Amino acid sequence: MAEVGPECIGIPILSGCDEEIVKAVISGEIPSYALEKQLGNSRRAASIRREALQRTTGRNLEGLPIDNFDYDSILGRCCELPVGYVQLPVGVAGPILLDGLEYYVPMATTEGCLVASTNRGCKAITESGGAISTVLRDGMTRAPVVRFETAARAAQLKFFLEEPANLESIALIFNRSSRYARLQGIKCGLAGRYLYMRFVCSTGDAMGMNMVSKGVQNVLDFLQDDFLDMEVISISGNYCTDKKPAAVNWIEGRGKSVVCEATIKGEIVKKVLKTDVASLVELNVVKNLVGSAVAGTMGGFNAHASNIVTAVFIATGQDPAQNVESSHCITMMEAVSCGQDLHVSVTMPCIEVGTVGGGTHLAAQAACLDLLGVKGASVESPGANASRLATIVAGAVLAGELSLMSALASGQLVMSHMKYNRSTKGIIAKD
Amino acid sequence: MAEVGPECIGIPILSGCDEEIVKAVISGEIPSYALEKQLGNSRRAASIRREALQRTTGRNLEGLPIDNFDYDSILGRCCELPVGYVQLPVGVAGPILLDGLEYYVPMATTEGCLVASTNRGCKAITESGGAISTVLRDGMTRAPVVRFETAARAAQLKFFLEEPANLESIALIFNRSSRYARLQGIKCGLAGRYLYMRFVCSTGDAMGMNMVSKGVQNVLDFLQDDFLDMEVISISGNYCTDKKPAAVNWIEGRGKSVVCEATIKGEIVKKVLKTDVASLVELNVVKNLVGSAVAGTMGGFNAHASNIVTAVFIATGQDPAQNVESSHCITMMEAVSCGQDLHVSVTMPCIEVGTVGGGTHLAAQAACLDLLGVKGASVESPGANASRLATIVAGAVLAGELSLMSALASGQLVMSHMKYNRSTKGIIAKD
Amino acid sequence: MAEVGPECIGIPILSGCDEEIVKAVISGEIPSYALEKQLGNSRRAASIRREALQRTTGRNLEGLPIDNFDYDSILGRCCELPVGYVQLPVGVAGPILLDGLEYYVPMATTEGCLVASTNRGCKAITESGGAISTVLRDGMTRAPVVRFETAARAAQLKFFLEEPANLESIALIFNRSSRYARLQGIKCGLAGRYLYMRFVCSTGDAMGMNMVSKGVQNVLDFLQDDFLDMEVISISGNYCTDKKPAAVNWIEGRGKSVVCEATIKGEIVKKVLKTDVASLVELNVVKNLVGSAVAGTMGGFNAHASNIVTAVFIATGQDPAQNVESSHCITMMEAVSCGQDLHVSVTMPCIEVGTVGGGTHLAAQAACLDLLGVKGASVESPGANASRLATIVAGAVLAGELSLMSALASGQLVMSHMKYNRSTKGIIAKD
Amino acid sequence: MAEVGPECIGIPILSGCDEEIVKAVISGEIPSYALEKQLGNSRRAASIRREALQRTTGRNLEGLPIDNFDYDSILGRCCELPVGYVQLPVGVAGPILLDGLEYYVPMATTEGCLVASTNRGCKAITESGGAISTVLRDGMTRAPVVRFETAARAAQLKFFLEEPANLESIALIFNRSSRYARLQGIKCGLAGRYLYMRFVCSTGDAMGMNMVSKGVQNVLDFLQDDFLDMEVISISGNYCTDKKPAAVNWIEGRGKSVVCEATIKGEIVKKVLKTDVASLVELNVVKNLVGSAVAGTMGGFNAHASNIVTAVFIATGQDPAQNVESSHCITMMEAVSCGQDLHVSVTMPCIEVGTVGGGTHLAAQAACLDLLGVKGASVESPGANASRLATIVAGAVLAGELSLMSALASGQLVMSHMKYNRSTKGIIAKD
Repeated sequence: MAEVGPECIGIPILSGCDEEIVKAVISGEIPSYALEKQLGNSRRAASIRREALQRTTGRNLEGLPIDNFDYDSILGRCCELPVGYVQLPVGVAGPILLDGLEYYVPMATTEGCLVASTNRGCKAITESGGAISTVLRDGMTRAPVVRFETAARAAQLKFFLEEPANLESIALIFNRSSRYARLQGIKCGLAGRYLYMRFVCSTGDAMGMNMVSKGVQNVLDFLQDDFLDMEVISISGNYCTDKKPAAVNWIEGRGKSVVCEATIKGEIVKKVLKTDVASLVELNVVKNLVGSAVAGTMGGFNAHASNIVTAVFIATGQDPAQNVESSHCITMMEAVSCGQDLHVSVTMPCIEVGTVGGGTHLAAQAACLDLLGVKGASVESPGANASRLATIVAGAVLAGELSLMSALASGQLVMSHMKYNRSTKGIIAKD
Repeated sequence: MAEVGPECIGIPILSGCDEEIVKAVISGEIPSYALEKQLGNSRRAASIRREALQRTTGRNLEGLPIDNFDYDSILGRCCELPVGYVQLPVGVAGPILLDGLEYYVPMATTEGCLVASTNRGCKAITESGGAISTVLRDGMTRAPVVRFETAARAAQLKFFLEEPANLESIALIFNRSSRYARLQGIKCGLAGRYLYMRFVCSTGDAMGMNMVSKGVQNVLDFLQDDFLDMEVISISGNYCTDKKPAAVNWIEGRGKSVVCEATIKGEIVKKVLKTDVASLVELNVVKNLVGSAVAGTMGGFNAHASNIVTAVFIATGQDPAQNVESSHCITMMEAVSCGQDLHVSVTMPCIEVGTVGGGTHLAAQAACLDLLGVKGASVESPGANASRLATIVAGAVLAGELSLMSALASGQLVMSHMKYNRSTKGIIAKD
Repeated sequence: MAEVGPECIGIPILSGCDEEIVKAVISGEIPSYALEKQLGNSRRAASIRREALQRTTGRNLEGLPIDNFDYDSILGRCCELPVGYVQLPVGVAGPILLDGLEYYVPMATTEGCLVASTNRGCKAITESGGAISTVLRDGMTRAPVVRFETAARAAQLKFFLEEPANLESIALIFNRSSRYARLQGIKCGLAGRYLYMRFVCSTGDAMGMNMVSKGVQNVLDFLQDDFLDMEVISISGNYCTDKKPAAVNWIEGRGKSVVCEATIKGEIVKKVLKTDVASLVELNVVKNLVGSAVAGTMGGFNAHASNIVTAVFIATGQDPAQNVESSHCITMMEAVSCGQDLHVSVTMPCIEVGTVGGGTHLAAQAACLDLLGVKGASVESPGANASRLATIVAGAVLAGELSLMSALASGQLVMSHMKYNRSTKGIIAKD
Repeated sequence: MAEVGPECIGIPILSGCDEEIVKAVISGEIPSYALEKQLGNSRRAASIRREALQRTTGRNLEGLPIDNFDYDSILGRCCELPVGYVQLPVGVAGPILLDGLEYYVPMATTEGCLVASTNRGCKAITESGGAISTVLRDGMTRAPVVRFETAARAAQLKFFLEEPANLESIALIFNRSSRYARLQGIKCGLAGRYLYMRFVCSTGDAMGMNMVSKGVQNVLDFLQDDFLDMEVISISGNYCTDKKPAAVNWIEGRGKSVVCEATIKGEIVKKVLKTDVASLVELNVVKNLVGSAVAGTMGGFNAHASNIVTAVFIATGQDPAQNVESSHCITMMEAVSCGQDLHVSVTMPCIEVGTVGGGTHLAAQAACLDLLGVKGASVESPGANASRLATIVAGAVLAGELSLMSALASGQLVMSHMKYNRSTKGIIAKD
């Protein structure tokens, strides 16, 4: 960003020992953010910043590790002003049999029981013959907002964008932003004389926000020539919608829309999940449908999709701030085969993932992607890795839903039957 | 949870070399989840599991660090089936002057510009005299669902719970779950013959979900004696609402409800934020209010609160899966002092944080809490540390909103004025 | 309202024949709105206005009746600038056995099948032993918005209002607005330095909006003395929320919150509703729960509550503009008695009705209220009539839901089984 | 509907005097619903039904008019089991200059001040040069729900429907339902193995629900041939969404999507609206944007659109039960011309109106449509009348918003400045 370090252009690499530089940072002589550039050594910059921070605050950062991390890998890409790193343990749930392949799903979390519970769900799925996923649509979005003098005029741009021929020309402009970007459409929202244009495009194996933003910028420049009276207010007008719960995402989807399903055999429900089909079906209606309806949710018709999405996102270098909408999910459970087996599915319209960009190139995260066989860009079929990662997220959520719902359903039995000798272990909900 | 290892009770500690045990795990002879108990050595268990995983999958986990981490610290508390950990770089934004104190805010993220941008916001706030926060309410929630034969009967329990005398008795039962738990009230939602009882309680310095769940369990047992016909369906009926966007949280709050505000001097807006008051005020209406309205958001009237919430949560050992509702935020910007200065605020009803429990005790995360002066339980004033952490989260969000909105607002200027020679640097929105 | 006619105070009653006055209205010499006051004859005023309108527009209003209506009854209370009236046919559904009494429910509608369908539902309910209703809470709301210089200061007023002693004093002030008004509480919403105070009060047999508004005005005056820096922005800040779909109503309720339920015998489902229990239970999940969830509804988990609410509202002189939230409803259907019978319920948190005020005193509407035995104020138990009316609305909705859902469920069978010889009559959904 | 009277086919016209037939109805010998068919005289049937009702209930319906209404006009189309009609006074607001034409808008209401207030808004608009409307899109919707054995299979139908060639074939089938029906597209929502297909089509001058339902039925039959495993669960799966507040309508629109705008001159704001531009702009942000955001609205970012929509709907024979979504509206107010004038707009995505069908043919309602010049079907341009009616609704809402907001804004001044001598008249909000 512009505010990072333009002042230091041309400044010679700092000489001086660490101690001198620490003092200069504390005194404000050397801006903390300029250390990387001035020292030409990311690791040393972090160390000096850290020392200055400790002295300034009088706090001890000893517990925060600093070694064994490649600070060049985050420089100008992932994190500014670093002083170390936090460690998030990675547990592995699985194997889960999904679309004919077995996956071991890495989950970075500090929430007890989460990996174990998901693991149990994976077992139930795999022993029942596996889960099947379908990618319903795939498109990242960005919605700038522009203003005209009148609403009538804003509507003209809307009508212009809806003409197939115009969309074609615009796609040509848009797609220049990247060889992977392919504009799919533009959905317009209007409020008076403000037009919000939600660009949707496929983005290869990248999550794609930056790619889309660049394409949008190109299109805005292009449109300006024909719509001289168009004022660009912001490249993002919140109709995108990024990292906020919003109807437009729930209805239209964002990133990958995935449905994942499995039929769990009745005996597996009993043996692995320690409950029965009827109880799960009932609980799903009472909790995930009715309870969420009473609570007034937007897209939260599930037990704890967010837990699994977040843990897999962190392990694989995704942006966990996006789990707000990436965890939108409606979980369905129905009795099939004359009530003997359980059909369970999760429908998730907004899984925002990539296998390149973001934190995916960091060593640990890349290893987790590699474990899943989706590291980096897919050469043979661009976008295939990111799509596959989305289906794995959905598969893991399916496992997580199955297991927590079972714990809750059987907890109920515990409560009814063992009133005087109960343990709360295992029935404390994780959602 | 029940599914973790009850089978291994009484099993003698495994002898044998690593190689033998790895093979036994691969063959299924030794269940992977049982390694910790059977080996009596968490670190070795992780190592063996990891090796088995590598051989099973044919994947190389080399990039995923395993050393320099205390596996005992997560055993039975934070993460099952561990095979290593991911590293998330921690950048520090600040100082931000908040309620008279200066804080350096640790942010764990892999999103470029986020720390730098928040840092800029901190600078604008601090140079303008600082921000002020107010905790509007504080209560964690859990809502079990019970069923009666009729809705009329379910309503009777609702009326019973609304009697002050009954609530008092129930509080006595509830509060036994912990010396910090203090039941504040029970809000009832009803759908036919199902009653959803949302228990609200203060939880000291813990985020408090487990504490509340225990208290709820106690109360359910107690109520069962008077309401023999009450069927407990689930200890969580989604009216809580945990990790899902839900109106009940937006309206009622969950965790800490905090408002944080600052008045940014006009000259600081220009100098530090590179924009002007009028542009910010206008953009806030067009993007954060109108754009979010058109998008149909629930609680997402902000630019990118989720980014900051998530980064601070991960750095300080909070549950990032809760960012779904913890990032609910309405950002307000108004011109004051005859249009010269900017009054900015963020109102966040659901900040779910604790300074004990969860991942807060892990070395790195504890160091980050210590950096903020809110590590562990507050001895002199139970709950004060968690409350303070919530205000710091809100303060950091305030800084983040200011900075991104400024980048967007000035980007617009860039676009208008430098059409033929523009750089997209710094104007690519981060939300 | 202030804009109606203050200019004509003191103006002598117009002399002159109709023709002269019509011309004066057309020429603008006499303002149309002043006719009632200047002529001292409401009926004649309407007639002259109508004639002027016909001449001005060149349109013929012959079809719009003007006779046989008491224009004095609406003067200054119900409708300004009248030129006649529309006729809405009133059909009667019933009897419905509700809480031990039989009601014939008047419905004013022009939607074909609606009365007949509701009638069928009433029959199914009555033949099954009747429905039972429960009023869960009762309180009308109004939420002014005020501003302070800072959010911290706005929070102080919030804390002040939460003190029981202060609420008591405020209630004294508030309740002066009417002998029926009883303040129950004040729920505060805050956005930065703006405080939205949602006053909730019982209002006797009136729907109560005006009563509450007056009480709110009294309290604002009172508070101003202690909070000199409080700026009243508006007596309504949309946190009320009147005539808009809003989470605060769905969660908190507005007007009367009612649940109404019945158990329909399996044989009645077959004989009267022409379907079966299992089909209804399934359809309710698929349409009213899942379909509405996928559509992203707020409070619309039903088939067509709005149809019935609107028809009964118009017939009984309620405000049909309030059906936006009065029709919020979650419909539940479950198999009971080992799957043989159907338990059905509607839970409606926001039924806004009164038996005095609004259009309730007009002759036709009053007759409809009288038919239900709830005309005017209840002498023995103030508020009882309005409450009863709310339960009747809920009962009628229960009947309507049952019947339409049955038509849809059996229509499905029609479709499957009679593919080549089908009639679309009776299967076209009304919702 | 099927339940109305099939039993009476072939039954000879009843002889006997009224008294005998009344007794037969009371005794149950003659079903009340069969009277029309058996008597062959709608008016007499209503009269006998009414008398039977009075005797059965012991209530007097004298106040409910029965004469001067054509009962044949509602027979089998608008209302079953009639016993009379209610009268709703029609006031006229206007003229409002809209798109270059002057309209006098009929409003049927019993809410005091509503017509007068709207009238004031019309005056402000007309004196400022008039309002301009734009129809952004136009399509009625209906969404059946079908089930497959798996979600993967349901997705196949979704993909099938998304193929342009298939959509073309389907449109041919669909459009047979009426010569006005033109299928525009099908939007799919999916939850597990359930597919909700939202058909969108233009419907000429009809509101179009029945037309769409018929077309959908045709398509379902057609699809069944290719998708033998498709189970039709219901012709309406609530993804339509009719008469419920739903995100899908707010985002996608339903019926006509209209934006209507005007620039009100500063002097008119003062003279006619008794307030000033700055106060209105501020109030719109605080109430219609922020207040509604805090309340958690879906599509309710306005002051009282529902009031105007409902009144115009009833006067013109529309379905007032649809006001739930027809009143979705975001109201914008901005200072323009260097702060001197006010730009105001209402954006309403879901105005569901028609000029044929429903109650539009009833004499009074037809007269109101005629007054607006939009009676019946447009011969020269099918659909033009319904479209125009939608713009008039939006124009009237614009007027209503202006006036109520002004009353609220100036009420505030009253409150501040005339504390000891205030009248609450005119400042009590109508929303």
